[in-house]
Amino acid sequence: MRQKITLREVGLRDGLQIHSSFMPTADKLGWIAAEAAAGMGEIEVTSYVPPKLIPQFADAQEVTLGALNIPGLVVAALIPNLRGAQRGIELGVHKLNFVMSVSETHNMKNVRRMPAESVNDFRAIVELIRSQPEGKRPIIVGGLSTALGCSYEGRVAVSHVVKYARQLVEAGADELVVADTVGYADPNQVREVFNAVRAEVGPVIIGAHFHDTRGTGLANVSAALDCGITHFDASLAGLGGCPFAPGASGNIVMEDLCFMLDSMGLETGVDIEKLIEVRQHIARALPDIAMHGGIARAGLPHNYVSFAQRSAA
Amino acid sequence: MRQKITLREVGLRDGLQIHSSFMPTADKLGWIAAEAAAGMGEIEVTSYVPPKLIPQFADAQEVTLGALNIPGLVVAALIPNLRGAQRGIELGVHKLNFVMSVSETHNMKNVRRMPAESVNDFRAIVELIRSQPEGKRPIIVGGLSTALGCSYEGRVAVSHVVKYARQLVEAGADELVVADTVGYADPNQVREVFNAVRAEVGPVIIGAHFHDTRGTGLANVSAALDCGITHFDASLAGLGGCPFAPGASGNIVMEDLCFMLDSMGLETGVDIEKLIEVRQHIARALPDIAMHGGIARAGLPHNYVSFAQRSAA
Repeated sequence: MRQKITLREVGLRDGLQIHSSFMPTADKLGWIAAEAAAGMGEIEVTSYVPPKLIPQFADAQEVTLGALNIPGLVVAALIPNLRGAQRGIELGVHKLNFVMSVSETHNMKNVRRMPAESVNDFRAIVELIRSQPEGKRPIIVGGLSTALGCSYEGRVAVSHVVKYARQLVEAGADELVVADTVGYADPNQVREVFNAVRAEVGPVIIGAHFHDTRGTGLANVSAALDCGITHFDASLAGLGGCPFAPGASGNIVMEDLCFMLDSMGLETGVDIEKLIEVRQHIARALPDIAMHGGIARAGLPHNYVSFAQRSAA
Repeated sequence: MRQKITLREVGLRDGLQIHSSFMPTADKLGWIAAEAAAGMGEIEVTSYVPPKLIPQFADAQEVTLGALNIPGLVVAALIPNLRGAQRGIELGVHKLNFVMSVSETHNMKNVRRMPAESVNDFRAIVELIRSQPEGKRPIIVGGLSTALGCSYEGRVAVSHVVKYARQLVEAGADELVVADTVGYADPNQVREVFNAVRAEVGPVIIGAHFHDTRGTGLANVSAALDCGITHFDASLAGLGGCPFAPGASGNIVMEDLCFMLDSMGLETGVDIEKLIEVRQHIARALPDIAMHGGIARAGLPHNYVSFAQRSAA
């Protein structure tokens, strides 16, 4: 029995947003094309924020349009607000990842809104999407940042996460993403939070977004798998962090995640060896960026038989 | 309800054995004393091998005797053979960690024995221990290396692991350690192997020894916890590897392991902040050694409440 896992590359957004030097647009598109060719089905390619806020995303339009030329790729982008949603709709992006923080302090620092105000923003975004003609309506994802801890407030009450998850689904979210933005979570906490959210919102897709700041990233993936979670964010070479979360460095490493899932007998659709080669796009374009990852350094196990090879045999 | 976890520092043996420069004996003893003071209850302090084979352990006697002066600390040492066991008994070490590889090729390269010959060696070691007067008999641990994969043979049959586990227990092992020597394991494989060994050997203590070569180390710990495993090896700063296993770099990081377990509500007895300070002993003595770890870099979560603080409250 094949359990299919959906992976989402977030390095171009979460990985690049805090990096000081601009990755040229051609390199971003080369990275996206190469990773799509390695089997990555969904990529968060940019963020629709004002360039003066995050200069890295000044080329959001070119990157979005370039990525939309790749057949079969689900092209997603982060939006902080209604204005971002408007841009995404105009560009024809497939999926809009709205993000709000469950923690009040983090949400205030990040978007200068109370969480309840962000939920209202989300309602307006859904309204905008629904007012579009059929075929022009992107999938809308409700993302809950700092759901497993906040660098300003510490532990976040599970009841808060559940409350905002319910409000986003009631407002019309097609999917949720529950994020350990600052890498605080442990496997027991992951099980507690994801099970509670699942119990509250029913069958809507719940994605998991983990950071490996304290070494627990893949352990938390494993715990989320136990809860039936099948959608995971990660970034190539473990790029990433959050500009408003001190000490938060690194999304979970996509290559290591792919290896773990593949080795566990789960179907990711990704060719790990091709995926490892995609790292060269980053290394060439940003020689000063910190790249992480065990598989890239140590290689696949001796005589490793991938899921695809096992399935073909 | 408190679930107590037993941690064993193996960095002085597994971490130092492949390092080219000698750590001065006083620094080793400083490290051991500081880590014991941070709450580490058991430390594998050295290996009883000929100094010409591994010069790092030329001071095995001084290190053993020094460590035995620390009240309450369980002092363990690795032994490859009967001669090593004899030395350990003479020195009065508390625990002897015998190690053999489940994989034939790895065992041949490591100790020039077939696994069945190593089991015979183990029987002779148990006989030697039992011939000692009461009170002079160290605890004897049977360690199964490459139990989750071999850098020469790839995947290892679970039936092989189970067979040698049974033979070691029948021969008189007080405890077992099942090791992912080269960092190949995934959580599903961990559950399969540890459940199979448990079903075969009954209530004997089964420790887990994982390497974080491919990022899955703490995920594998979490899976082993699911199987009821409560004894874990790790090394401070993730030092480690195996001279006969190409690409195998790094035991799981003790500080990150302690954080994950503590955060999960499990009792390790270790003070994480004191543990992090012990890293300075390594950094001072071996400035050129590669040190790893998320918690040491990122710090504990904001407002983190440790198990000890929660228990006191």
